[in-house]
Amino acid sequence: MHNASVAIIGASGYSGIEATRILAEHPRVELKLLASERWEGDSIQKRLGIGGPVGALQYAPVKGCEEAARHCDAVLLATPVDVSLQLVRLLSDSQESGDPSTPGSRALALRSGRAPLVIDLSGAFRLANAASYPAFYGFAHPHPELLAAAAYGLPELFRREIEGARLIANPGCYPTAAAIAIAPLLREGFLDDGSIVIDAASGTTGAGRKSSDEWIFSEVDEDFRAYKVLKHQHAPEIAQSLARCAGRPVPMTFTPHLLPIKRGILATVYARLKPGRDPAEAVTALKRFYRSEPFVTVLDSPDEVTLKGVVGTNRCAIGAAWDRTQLDPGRLVVISAIDNLVKGAAGQAVQNLNIAMGWPEAEGLSQLRGFYP
Amino acid sequence: MHNASVAIIGASGYSGIEATRILAEHPRVELKLLASERWEGDSIQKRLGIGGPVGALQYAPVKGCEEAARHCDAVLLATPVDVSLQLVRLLSDSQESGDPSTPGSRALALRSGRAPLVIDLSGAFRLANAASYPAFYGFAHPHPELLAAAAYGLPELFRREIEGARLIANPGCYPTAAAIAIAPLLREGFLDDGSIVIDAASGTTGAGRKSSDEWIFSEVDEDFRAYKVLKHQHAPEIAQSLARCAGRPVPMTFTPHLLPIKRGILATVYARLKPGRDPAEAVTALKRFYRSEPFVTVLDSPDEVTLKGVVGTNRCAIGAAWDRTQLDPGRLVVISAIDNLVKGAAGQAVQNLNIAMGWPEAEGLSQLRGFYP
Amino acid sequence: MHNASVAIIGASGYSGIEATRILAEHPRVELKLLASERWEGDSIQKRLGIGGPVGALQYAPVKGCEEAARHCDAVLLATPVDVSLQLVRLLSDSQESGDPSTPGSRALALRSGRAPLVIDLSGAFRLANAASYPAFYGFAHPHPELLAAAAYGLPELFRREIEGARLIANPGCYPTAAAIAIAPLLREGFLDDGSIVIDAASGTTGAGRKSSDEWIFSEVDEDFRAYKVLKHQHAPEIAQSLARCAGRPVPMTFTPHLLPIKRGILATVYARLKPGRDPAEAVTALKRFYRSEPFVTVLDSPDEVTLKGVVGTNRCAIGAAWDRTQLDPGRLVVISAIDNLVKGAAGQAVQNLNIAMGWPEAEGLSQLRGFYP
Amino acid sequence: MHNASVAIIGASGYSGIEATRILAEHPRVELKLLASERWEGDSIQKRLGIGGPVGALQYAPVKGCEEAARHCDAVLLATPVDVSLQLVRLLSDSQESGDPSTPGSRALALRSGRAPLVIDLSGAFRLANAASYPAFYGFAHPHPELLAAAAYGLPELFRREIEGARLIANPGCYPTAAAIAIAPLLREGFLDDGSIVIDAASGTTGAGRKSSDEWIFSEVDEDFRAYKVLKHQHAPEIAQSLARCAGRPVPMTFTPHLLPIKRGILATVYARLKPGRDPAEAVTALKRFYRSEPFVTVLDSPDEVTLKGVVGTNRCAIGAAWDRTQLDPGRLVVISAIDNLVKGAAGQAVQNLNIAMGWPEAEGLSQLRGFYP
Repeated sequence: MHNASVAIIGASGYSGIEATRILAEHPRVELKLLASERWEGDSIQKRLGIGGPVGALQYAPVKGCEEAARHCDAVLLATPVDVSLQLVRLLSDSQESGDPSTPGSRALALRSGRAPLVIDLSGAFRLANAASYPAFYGFAHPHPELLAAAAYGLPELFRREIEGARLIANPGCYPTAAAIAIAPLLREGFLDDGSIVIDAASGTTGAGRKSSDEWIFSEVDEDFRAYKVLKHQHAPEIAQSLARCAGRPVPMTFTPHLLPIKRGILATVYARLKPGRDPAEAVTALKRFYRSEPFVTVLDSPDEVTLKGVVGTNRCAIGAAWDRTQLDPGRLVVISAIDNLVKGAAGQAVQNLNIAMGWPEAEGLSQLRGFYP
Repeated sequence: MHNASVAIIGASGYSGIEATRILAEHPRVELKLLASERWEGDSIQKRLGIGGPVGALQYAPVKGCEEAARHCDAVLLATPVDVSLQLVRLLSDSQESGDPSTPGSRALALRSGRAPLVIDLSGAFRLANAASYPAFYGFAHPHPELLAAAAYGLPELFRREIEGARLIANPGCYPTAAAIAIAPLLREGFLDDGSIVIDAASGTTGAGRKSSDEWIFSEVDEDFRAYKVLKHQHAPEIAQSLARCAGRPVPMTFTPHLLPIKRGILATVYARLKPGRDPAEAVTALKRFYRSEPFVTVLDSPDEVTLKGVVGTNRCAIGAAWDRTQLDPGRLVVISAIDNLVKGAAGQAVQNLNIAMGWPEAEGLSQLRGFYP
Repeated sequence: MHNASVAIIGASGYSGIEATRILAEHPRVELKLLASERWEGDSIQKRLGIGGPVGALQYAPVKGCEEAARHCDAVLLATPVDVSLQLVRLLSDSQESGDPSTPGSRALALRSGRAPLVIDLSGAFRLANAASYPAFYGFAHPHPELLAAAAYGLPELFRREIEGARLIANPGCYPTAAAIAIAPLLREGFLDDGSIVIDAASGTTGAGRKSSDEWIFSEVDEDFRAYKVLKHQHAPEIAQSLARCAGRPVPMTFTPHLLPIKRGILATVYARLKPGRDPAEAVTALKRFYRSEPFVTVLDSPDEVTLKGVVGTNRCAIGAAWDRTQLDPGRLVVISAIDNLVKGAAGQAVQNLNIAMGWPEAEGLSQLRGFYP
Repeated sequence: MHNASVAIIGASGYSGIEATRILAEHPRVELKLLASERWEGDSIQKRLGIGGPVGALQYAPVKGCEEAARHCDAVLLATPVDVSLQLVRLLSDSQESGDPSTPGSRALALRSGRAPLVIDLSGAFRLANAASYPAFYGFAHPHPELLAAAAYGLPELFRREIEGARLIANPGCYPTAAAIAIAPLLREGFLDDGSIVIDAASGTTGAGRKSSDEWIFSEVDEDFRAYKVLKHQHAPEIAQSLARCAGRPVPMTFTPHLLPIKRGILATVYARLKPGRDPAEAVTALKRFYRSEPFVTVLDSPDEVTLKGVVGTNRCAIGAAWDRTQLDPGRLVVISAIDNLVKGAAGQAVQNLNIAMGWPEAEGLSQLRGFYP
């Protein structure tokens, strides 16, 4: 067993904190650098109550942290999209490179291992098609060559490409829950493409640690609403995963909602079976597909899928049912649940780190426990 | 202005309490009888803090209350299905009737006005097709002849049949939110029938005042889950309304979820436009349809539809949007929100009372206010 | 019945919104001016869903609003302390005044009625002793002469001074709940002075509509904590009320806590009876003192005092008990509950307006209703 | 290192579940028996998602479980008071005993080690004085001789008596939080005895898994209230701990409140310093007393003590401040926070198990982590 040194940049956001907690107990990881403007100069012990050598580490400023990060084996970026874009550029400009500004050489630096492994938790490298950025993120992507170089880190569906990756785009929380729920059914040709609807709801930590009028307790508590209807930036990311699994573009609609709770995403996915396909076989196919996955559990019924069953863990619980009432023959409903900060962010990042490093995939993750109640 | 005497049976459940509060201030109503086993003998003043003559009224036992209720002009049944079935039979067995046990004479008694107007808040008389009861309610309906006699009390869609009604089936909370959202679009032929999905979430008062392990605070708080997936008894009720508006059976799928809040239902309704139909015209049609409705507001965007905007009022807020991203061309999303205890239960019952009595429809309802925040 | 024109400055904060809602239905008030930077230019209809002529009114900017406010009969300041200080100065500098900058003439202008009646909901004029401002508010009071001119608007205890007032300091939310609970017992000499402890908890709207990291949902939800322990600015305000009722300084300790709910303050007040005083007589004295108060209800037991019993109303519920276990003989516990935005802010401001205008004290307030549940 | 076999009776209540989770990962414990009527026949894997050999264990019925429990090294009773009373009798009636019904022989059996170590999480053996049971628990204690034999398991205050114990009364949740906050100050003579007030608030899991109208989500959510004011059964338990530390009876008043959250107790404790005692020294004494305690942390200010800082862990956080405002000279406020299901129940039970077994006190507990946020 050999150790790797890891940096977390953006360490005081909710995903950064969760990553710190997980990696602080990861048996193969040595946390070397935690960067955060908000907590600059404080110790991890003071902020997170973690003891030992990790606890003594102090938060460094984000500005200029790439110098130290460059000497780590892996860097987790828990930063906003624009900061991630800038940091990936800085981290891939290795000093040995003849011409750091050449796009080709940057992708090369990443690939050749002269730069650290980068796992980016933002949306900066998730969409393979650069043309989607203006429409959904509001800017033209400055490094389209890196989009091709980046692996999309959803292990249950795309594990092979993660294995040798040097730049991993860690999936969004909604896209993780949605794709796990139905991608296998598209892969096996069960679904009538025009029929897919993904209705999902998230706790407030999904919005990060932003201070704004609309996120204060008095506004969110006892309310429930949809937001960014038919224009959320996770929609093209979900479509991309479904298309890759189906082998062709798959129309689909996604609506996110805001829950007055802290953690958890529940996605209720609707699809219609292709004529002649047996719904029971679809459910069996789901179970078979995930049979040996350590972090996906297919339950007997969608009614058993709850947030409290997964919060605090890296697990995704799913359950499926089909219409037996004759009100809508051929309809299939698949429900999935994850903790948006774990399987939907920091936990999945560690899962990707394990895969890219060649370590056991569940290392440092299988012991994560939720509460009951 | 002339007064009517009203009884509320099942007055200590959440819908019964809400009905009491509304009717206590209704200018044309004299509350005569409130029946509740739980609060038998207590005054309304003691239990609900309502002053004046209404406050002095004491809760009577449900058992035997039909004698007094029979002399009221109207009776609200806020009782479970089985109790409602029994009470409607007792209330329609008028003493003058030659043969009270003849089904035909019972419907006749209701129609002839020898019995009080009955507004039933349970599901006992909502489904016109008696064959749906065994499948969704678990019993064969004992009075199929009354199903034909009952008006379905969703004024915005079926006002005319309520006007002369003697037995009104007050709609379920989910069916109210769902049907208001899209029935007008079916009526005007905008929607591709096979495409309708209704994803809805309700606060816990929708489950009533049941004491059971699964409803205690420790179990519900910070959780979110679907329940009765593809077998909820409100599904056929929604299908019935959609079919009546479309003029033919309309396949549709409905999934209810449980929110960790007290009040409110948000329904996110998905449909596909018929090829060639213009989505902007669909939204215009919604606005036109509800233009003069006192209790339905069509907002500019589905993002503006919130529970806090309607809780405490008899209003239904709706908003619609269509796909402009090319991820799912032709997709329409309509979101609606109501307070499940007001527009989804007691408020709508009073609205139906007003219509059946020939009073102004908003009497006693327009002054209801929510809180902010 | 004659009308009065009223302005609300700071109309988009939570107290300002609540005041708008109440005054929009107040039979003797005509809302003339609503000032808010946040909502400048929007209509009340758009922001609060209030119809009619009031709904058509548009929010004006706070800057410069004193010109229009000066022509109203009364002005409610729902503004931060510093803005209130400035506005009271501007409003009392009437044009007719020979020398507006003379402190004496300003107090005179207020008293003579050349300026509108001002009801200030901030802490700017609550403490009669100017020396308390540096210690608890962090600044030297710029207008100590106005402190003497201001009436402290807690009607149940100090109604007489409100009657002719031109400047009313509307009490803080905690001081309202605390003083109502035990001031009558001090007035009648029941309590051992050194023994008074006030432990209180408030919903998040008490902190106003601030956007800051510490008030976002993810931070507040599922937590509970004390804040500003032994240094909260409401402590001297409570002490002042108790001292006025007792006729001498009364030592007391106050600790506020933050509840993960939106509305409501519960104060649990501890005191020891003077040796020889009968606890049953103390409870009787409380009931007698509040017997004809429209907004204070003394319940049979402190266990009956709940937030849900008062939220949405201008009521204060209280209940008292004494030690019968011999664990702490002579101990008395009095619990009080109010809605911090109504009896703790906007509702009490309207109650003060009614008194100062010579109207019935419950006008526009008695119809306020909460929800159940 | 040698293992011990442990039974948990009442394993499906919230404390029983928490004990199961902790002991399933305790390196020295082999879970042998889990008894629960509710989950009889189900596996731990199915109910709690725990894998491995522990997960394969099935819940046994409580009735008759004493036979198997008797062969374990230790038994945790997470049962109601009456069941605990009965089970302790059954477990101490060892077969070898000549006369099992003789009280003396039962205490002897416990002491001699012929019966398993029993840790009872109910209140059945917490009060040394049998006379307190009728007043606070409503029954005459059937085994007063066992009250003398039982150790009170609050390690930070009474560690020595736990070391050799065979019957341990695990403290109540409120008494744990309250006694840790101020017992050291009484021990060292800092406090004016007549001045102690303990105001505390608990999440709903403190009430256990009871299904009753008053605990359903719709009733508890958005509310806050005190309960059992001046008659809660934890009051004499707190008084007992304070008296033992002070060396004489200490008058004190305790008021519990119900928080609309799941987990956590915050106790705000008020006391007055004896004349002449220095408050800074009192705070120093607290820090010194807990300096080497693994599970008690004294923070710099009571404002830093939060529930989210301790929930999910076996820690107790405390913070103290004294009056510097001259509003109440000599007043001290100490605030403590625990997770009621961990340090207030199952975690403390495991801490007691570790001590009684002679194992390291933090074994199986130090790795417990909370969430943030």
